[in-house]
Amino acid sequence: MQKTYLAGLIVLSTFLSPALVNAETASHPEQALHGSYKDWRVLGVSHRLDKKYVRAILGNDIAINAARSGKTQPWPDGTVIAKLSWKEQTHPRWPQAVIPGEFAGAEAIIKDSKKYPETGGWAFGHWEGGNLVINDKEKTATCFACHTIMKDHDYVFTEPALQ
Amino acid sequence: MQKTYLAGLIVLSTFLSPALVNAETASHPEQALHGSYKDWRVLGVSHRLDKKYVRAILGNDIAINAARSGKTQPWPDGTVIAKLSWKEQTHPRWPQAVIPGEFAGAEAIIKDSKKYPETGGWAFGHWEGGNLVINDKEKTATCFACHTIMKDHDYVFTEPALQ
Repeated sequence: MQKTYLAGLIVLSTFLSPALVNAETASHPEQALHGSYKDWRVLGVSHRLDKKYVRAILGNDIAINAARSGKTQPWPDGTVIAKLSWKEQTHPRWPQAVIPGEFAGAEAIIKDSKKYPETGGWAFGHWEGGNLVINDKEKTATCFACHTIMKDHDYVFTEPALQ
Repeated sequence: MQKTYLAGLIVLSTFLSPALVNAETASHPEQALHGSYKDWRVLGVSHRLDKKYVRAILGNDIAINAARSGKTQPWPDGTVIAKLSWKEQTHPRWPQAVIPGEFAGAEAIIKDSKKYPETGGWAFGHWEGGNLVINDKEKTATCFACHTIMKDHDYVFTEPALQ
């Protein structure tokens, strides 16, 4: 069932040719092509001072239900957590406020304990042209290396803030 | 119709006695009693450097639909935008990240152009024990004074980031 679920998530990019993606992006240059996370609910926010990004961390229904019932040790299979990043920007009329500037991308962690036992049960991915794409082995190793410091927190940096 | 809508939002606190609110809070001391915004979708995030707050800005369905269709000049009647604040906190294992600490409260702006013409069509409120409460005249004047600098943006500081 998890495989079916994941297969559904990973829409094959071939259905959306690069030309079409470019055309859509070009017709709405100010808008990113957002993915399935667009309607998800909030788990938290963050401000990465080093990268100069502000972020929203959202969860799919499985993630939100787990967070609200306190069942995140470990997060259940099927959990997807999306990390949306924007370049930080000073509010044009309220300089004490840092707000989202240009959209910088959306990343994901996907829980499937049977499929990804070598990386704590998590796959690491990102949205590309609206589709969730699982990272290759090399990129995954980089992701997992940082997440390892959160091993006793099921490898997740986010502590749900809106329960 | 707007009046009915607002009446529905402003649940009379008398239905939830102070004793019951306290009992619920006491049994989950680590959790705030969140209001109707809990399932709303994201409009943006912010970090108030002066107040040392990080925030999530959420919208009800009317607000989200307006944001996604670019119809926010003005925002339509029925719009409610929630501003959730947490005290800023350094991530315990990733000091370059500022994350939500203690929940500091949730505020609202509510659009009803017929009911609130003197304050740009907006009412200002906050959630209290899970209920949305409209601020009194004095507090509203304080809110509106700051929002006035955004008059040409329909008095709203938030530019929707996730469209």
